[in-house]
Amino acid sequence: MAGTQNTAGDTELRVGLVGYEFMGAVHSQAWRTVNRVFELPAHATMTAICGRDEAKVAAAAGRLGWAEHMTDWRELVGRDDIDLIDICTPGDSHAEIAIAALEAGKHVLCEKPLGNTVGEAAAMAEAAARARPRGIAAMCGFNYRRVPAVALMRELVLAGRLGAIRHVRATYLQDWLNDPQFSLVWRLRRDRAGSGALGDLGAHIVDLAQFVTGQRLTGVSGMTETFVRERPLPVDGRAVGLGSAAARGRVTVDDAALFLARFDGGALATFEATRYATGRKNCLRMEINGELGSLAFDLERLNELEFYDATRPVGEQGFATVLVTEEQHPYLSAWWPPGHLLGYEHTFTHQLRDLLEAIALGREPAPSFAEALNVQLVLDAAERSANDGAGWITIAPVVLPIPA
Amino acid sequence: MAGTQNTAGDTELRVGLVGYEFMGAVHSQAWRTVNRVFELPAHATMTAICGRDEAKVAAAAGRLGWAEHMTDWRELVGRDDIDLIDICTPGDSHAEIAIAALEAGKHVLCEKPLGNTVGEAAAMAEAAARARPRGIAAMCGFNYRRVPAVALMRELVLAGRLGAIRHVRATYLQDWLNDPQFSLVWRLRRDRAGSGALGDLGAHIVDLAQFVTGQRLTGVSGMTETFVRERPLPVDGRAVGLGSAAARGRVTVDDAALFLARFDGGALATFEATRYATGRKNCLRMEINGELGSLAFDLERLNELEFYDATRPVGEQGFATVLVTEEQHPYLSAWWPPGHLLGYEHTFTHQLRDLLEAIALGREPAPSFAEALNVQLVLDAAERSANDGAGWITIAPVVLPIPA
Amino acid sequence: MAGTQNTAGDTELRVGLVGYEFMGAVHSQAWRTVNRVFELPAHATMTAICGRDEAKVAAAAGRLGWAEHMTDWRELVGRDDIDLIDICTPGDSHAEIAIAALEAGKHVLCEKPLGNTVGEAAAMAEAAARARPRGIAAMCGFNYRRVPAVALMRELVLAGRLGAIRHVRATYLQDWLNDPQFSLVWRLRRDRAGSGALGDLGAHIVDLAQFVTGQRLTGVSGMTETFVRERPLPVDGRAVGLGSAAARGRVTVDDAALFLARFDGGALATFEATRYATGRKNCLRMEINGELGSLAFDLERLNELEFYDATRPVGEQGFATVLVTEEQHPYLSAWWPPGHLLGYEHTFTHQLRDLLEAIALGREPAPSFAEALNVQLVLDAAERSANDGAGWITIAPVVLPIPA
Amino acid sequence: MAGTQNTAGDTELRVGLVGYEFMGAVHSQAWRTVNRVFELPAHATMTAICGRDEAKVAAAAGRLGWAEHMTDWRELVGRDDIDLIDICTPGDSHAEIAIAALEAGKHVLCEKPLGNTVGEAAAMAEAAARARPRGIAAMCGFNYRRVPAVALMRELVLAGRLGAIRHVRATYLQDWLNDPQFSLVWRLRRDRAGSGALGDLGAHIVDLAQFVTGQRLTGVSGMTETFVRERPLPVDGRAVGLGSAAARGRVTVDDAALFLARFDGGALATFEATRYATGRKNCLRMEINGELGSLAFDLERLNELEFYDATRPVGEQGFATVLVTEEQHPYLSAWWPPGHLLGYEHTFTHQLRDLLEAIALGREPAPSFAEALNVQLVLDAAERSANDGAGWITIAPVVLPIPA
Repeated sequence: MAGTQNTAGDTELRVGLVGYEFMGAVHSQAWRTVNRVFELPAHATMTAICGRDEAKVAAAAGRLGWAEHMTDWRELVGRDDIDLIDICTPGDSHAEIAIAALEAGKHVLCEKPLGNTVGEAAAMAEAAARARPRGIAAMCGFNYRRVPAVALMRELVLAGRLGAIRHVRATYLQDWLNDPQFSLVWRLRRDRAGSGALGDLGAHIVDLAQFVTGQRLTGVSGMTETFVRERPLPVDGRAVGLGSAAARGRVTVDDAALFLARFDGGALATFEATRYATGRKNCLRMEINGELGSLAFDLERLNELEFYDATRPVGEQGFATVLVTEEQHPYLSAWWPPGHLLGYEHTFTHQLRDLLEAIALGREPAPSFAEALNVQLVLDAAERSANDGAGWITIAPVVLPIPA
Repeated sequence: MAGTQNTAGDTELRVGLVGYEFMGAVHSQAWRTVNRVFELPAHATMTAICGRDEAKVAAAAGRLGWAEHMTDWRELVGRDDIDLIDICTPGDSHAEIAIAALEAGKHVLCEKPLGNTVGEAAAMAEAAARARPRGIAAMCGFNYRRVPAVALMRELVLAGRLGAIRHVRATYLQDWLNDPQFSLVWRLRRDRAGSGALGDLGAHIVDLAQFVTGQRLTGVSGMTETFVRERPLPVDGRAVGLGSAAARGRVTVDDAALFLARFDGGALATFEATRYATGRKNCLRMEINGELGSLAFDLERLNELEFYDATRPVGEQGFATVLVTEEQHPYLSAWWPPGHLLGYEHTFTHQLRDLLEAIALGREPAPSFAEALNVQLVLDAAERSANDGAGWITIAPVVLPIPA
Repeated sequence: MAGTQNTAGDTELRVGLVGYEFMGAVHSQAWRTVNRVFELPAHATMTAICGRDEAKVAAAAGRLGWAEHMTDWRELVGRDDIDLIDICTPGDSHAEIAIAALEAGKHVLCEKPLGNTVGEAAAMAEAAARARPRGIAAMCGFNYRRVPAVALMRELVLAGRLGAIRHVRATYLQDWLNDPQFSLVWRLRRDRAGSGALGDLGAHIVDLAQFVTGQRLTGVSGMTETFVRERPLPVDGRAVGLGSAAARGRVTVDDAALFLARFDGGALATFEATRYATGRKNCLRMEINGELGSLAFDLERLNELEFYDATRPVGEQGFATVLVTEEQHPYLSAWWPPGHLLGYEHTFTHQLRDLLEAIALGREPAPSFAEALNVQLVLDAAERSANDGAGWITIAPVVLPIPA
Repeated sequence: MAGTQNTAGDTELRVGLVGYEFMGAVHSQAWRTVNRVFELPAHATMTAICGRDEAKVAAAAGRLGWAEHMTDWRELVGRDDIDLIDICTPGDSHAEIAIAALEAGKHVLCEKPLGNTVGEAAAMAEAAARARPRGIAAMCGFNYRRVPAVALMRELVLAGRLGAIRHVRATYLQDWLNDPQFSLVWRLRRDRAGSGALGDLGAHIVDLAQFVTGQRLTGVSGMTETFVRERPLPVDGRAVGLGSAAARGRVTVDDAALFLARFDGGALATFEATRYATGRKNCLRMEINGELGSLAFDLERLNELEFYDATRPVGEQGFATVLVTEEQHPYLSAWWPPGHLLGYEHTFTHQLRDLLEAIALGREPAPSFAEALNVQLVLDAAERSANDGAGWITIAPVVLPIPA
């Protein structure tokens, strides 16, 4: 197993991060913070950051707090003094890096979606399954599981507080593509991103819906759309704005994806992911209705959870806005007093807390690559349905190792 | 044309109401109120109420303010001193009563859904089309069009304030069937109600979505479910409660219906109607996202409309909660000062205002039976899709008279 | 006692209304509705409406549904066929009309504030106390007590669900004077209205705070302000708008009034009444914090009550938004199904329900004139404090008959 | 001036922190983060942390990321290799440490309230004024000024978007003293904390109200209360819970403080600070009503600002919920994409950004000690008014140096 024991019996992990853009910066903030807030049996050292552009990665190392920088991820993966590889690159390189790291005996944290195709994700899950017996941990970065309010949702559902689940409705709405002059960034190219709103946003709500209910989606019927089919090409890799005279290219991913679904426990669900919901900036909402109660969450108010408890006297029933900042709430005992809010970045710190703890205790971290493959299978089924008149597509459970 | 002119040149309309339960009571409140609040060129008289149970309809007449009561709707329709028939019965009798009334030269206001089947609705729309040249008005009671906030939504959309519409998401959530011991009332029997949540709740959101956008739904992919398939039979026509030992019968309608859809203007939509959304009592929500802005409405806060205007400076953009109680707002100039709320029943008073005005001015009231038939066609397509693996069903526009 | 018994043993009450403006119209809607919705042991007949302008009152009678109209309130009060006088005039005529009516043996419903001065209010309370032994009922129209959510607040407080009360914060915010060109209507003249925001808005929150807590205010420290001291005079009794060249007059009442207070049970309170809170249209908010829980209400969302129950498990505590539309809630069993909202006018219908029931059962209706006098004493103390450097003013309980 | 220039021309500041409890931990998180997120002309090094308990401060140094630890603040202040002293101790030691540090030529950041008495605060302000000409910066830690939504409020007010201000209502509500068995911690002892809710919570809202409006409070009328006058003494310095048999001591500070106030621009204000508002955890709310618009903020939803713009067309006016996460918003360009929330701790990072920038550029940071003294004068006036029958107390402006 990667990592060493220190004299106090704690695990020491030397981390190498690949990618220094938005995700790299957020992960760095989490690595800087996790051991300063949580008492954990594992300690991380920010050893090296890796990216293709030497100047940029050097600047990032200084700014973000990494001891060294490198430009070749293969070299990083090959280093003896690295125990864990954190992958924050676009989806098209996930599989190659992750599989190499796992085979090199490194723990891996990989951003979602796991791979750009089901095939890639399956290969990654296989690699993780092969590495597991050697004590190697692989985790996919579905950070929103670590919003305290989301973790509380799951606690309440698994404790039976909602009874039988009837409905899930989940949306992840953004609006940054609303402007038709916004340029053709990598997220709009199938070869880089794999898919559009479906993979970027839909992946989160599919994962959360299964995480919170503890149930599996068994089938979907979907619909996708690309509202704006041509966009200005970025100039020097940067987005260009309104009225640009830049050359134009074709958008090869979906702008929006909607699907109906069923859970193995009998619940019905709607999912919607879009980048055209004007005014909704990061609006991941999920509501769950059960026989005994309901829960509703909105990422734009991530410190709150709405809980309707139908076992209360009728005249007092209502959606209670629980401010999820009490020390009794998941992850909260390490933070500030009640009523002092957490933000987006804390979900990444919590993710690392769970990862470090799992590694130190020899447990498999969640979500595993197999779970992330399952999410990919759901998205793939939704896309295939959308391409084929919205007909119902059944989703098989992930079985690993994949039978020959 | 039914109705007479009085000496002041105003139209006098003598009204006969069929049905005295919940809907009959709400309509009565609206008939009692409409001419006391609105200055209108037509005046209604509450001439007679009709229902099958003599004792009950007699009591209702006294309580609700009708001059006479009767037990035979055919007799009511045959009276010379009746100008307008208001139909508040369950769906299975709508077609017969409405067609007879139209043929007898009476104006008709008919509760939604128009008929229990597309065939019935089509026959009704044909009858209305035949009656129209004789100055006979037929209107379907989609009362939620008359929520001032909904009317304001339509005004803003039609004024181009949202630009091109990208998304509509509409839900109508209730929870009264959550209790599996709630009994098998008429709304749960296909022979009486035609369908379940789909026809009762789905009809409203389909109508509103088309009304507010001014666009037509062109296709759907749907899913329905009946969560509780057997329920206690009512005793003496009344619902029985928890733990009843009553005989049980089969629920023959859907408990919930969900569908994806497309508008002829290119927007995508999700629709969900259910009676199992614990804690959601009358939660009709509709959000519309367009290129230039968004609108969101919730019937449980019916005096409010949320408007996001993306043409404002970025730093000031936000969903504005407009309290729709200003005299500049639809229907409001006749009511109370700003900030003094209206309720559910006012939508029916507004409906009558529009109906009376249309009759007096010789205009066709909206929604016409043809529009209501169109709603039925959408619901029928959703149901057929649900019965056939969620495959896409295209919806043809209503053409009247229906070609031979 | 005024009123007669009919053959069914129910009380028949013939009503005379004085005033036909806004309040007269709202009261009329309530009189038209109360016996059509509630099963009551008393029935009201809308016998006559009275106002000084013959043409206007005649039109009002027709529109609002009164059988007759008159121009002399003394004549109305003198009629043998009138059992109840409903006073909807400006405050300067309340005392004269109410005392005459009580002395003539009529029941009286009088709009708030009871009188324009403490002296007037005291005389009215004395008259009511003298009339009471003869079975004559006198009630002051603090209609917001009849918002179902407010009645529910009181039920919960009196049932001990909040424990010891620590804090009350009450605001009644409007914004219609924000425009300095809005004209000098009667409500801005001390001789007609008695006071400004203090008496018009402050009266409601003082009454509600005492009603809901069941406690009495024992002292206050206050502050008032008139932001705009001169305004255009109305032309022909109508308000004039922006930029008017009309002659100007002095505003002789307060624009805003704020005061701190203590309850006899030990709670602290803040009160604020203003007509300059831009964007707040009818924003009567009241929050109560007790040892065991809290309640919060907002008149702009009058169908909702927020209840925080601190006896619940810590991790589930939150303000629950109770939609006060269940048949278990006060006044609701007579209305529509759950989730179907009521509005402003329903509070007046509920007020009449309580008044009719009290009269039929021989009980004293609440709030009595003595209770309304108490409200006036609080407002008077606030005003005196404001005029004297905000020093503390102690408020004595009302004792009737007033000792010689 | 303390601090050195590095070869890049940036200022290098070596920081010593006094205090390692809650405030020390939050400040540490901010010191660790500020230079990793913001591009600044000054860089901080976390040189030493100081506290009286050797074991605890040693542990804190390791956990929080300080290079060294010490137990004597005088020694810290005397070190040549320290440029800035950050004071996070209880209020009773602020004056002594801050004055010594300033005299030793160190920049000082001091937590609020500045001192425990007006005398202490005045001495500190004098010391800061004396140090200023030597390039020494002194700042008081009113961190809530650095909530982006609060900074945006100020921008909008100062840009004239509200016009003349009429009303401010500010509350800071917590509920942690609700339990009468909660023990007598240092915050409940006048000798340590100076005052109770007034100084702890009231200080924030007084500062914010003046900061956001750009106006000065000129007078107050106040009221305070101590609801629970005896509490169990802490055992070993730790709070004890319900039912404790511990010895009891007297609470010597206020539990709640309320006051009315006037601004020099003519606006009226209410302030309320309490630790007994059940269900309100960290509920700092401030609403400002002006002639042209209103703003409302709630710290429990700190990423949002409500803005009512009364210059919009009447039919579209409403409180817009601005999600303050756009790069156009204060402090936001350094953080995550739109819709990705910040939390409580970010206000401290922003505070350091502003402090570092001010030091590097040679500007006086805000709020200065003189501004913090002004807050103290307001609180002192409120307390004196409360002790003297709520009579009005006029507040003089701060003039420094204080005239002999």
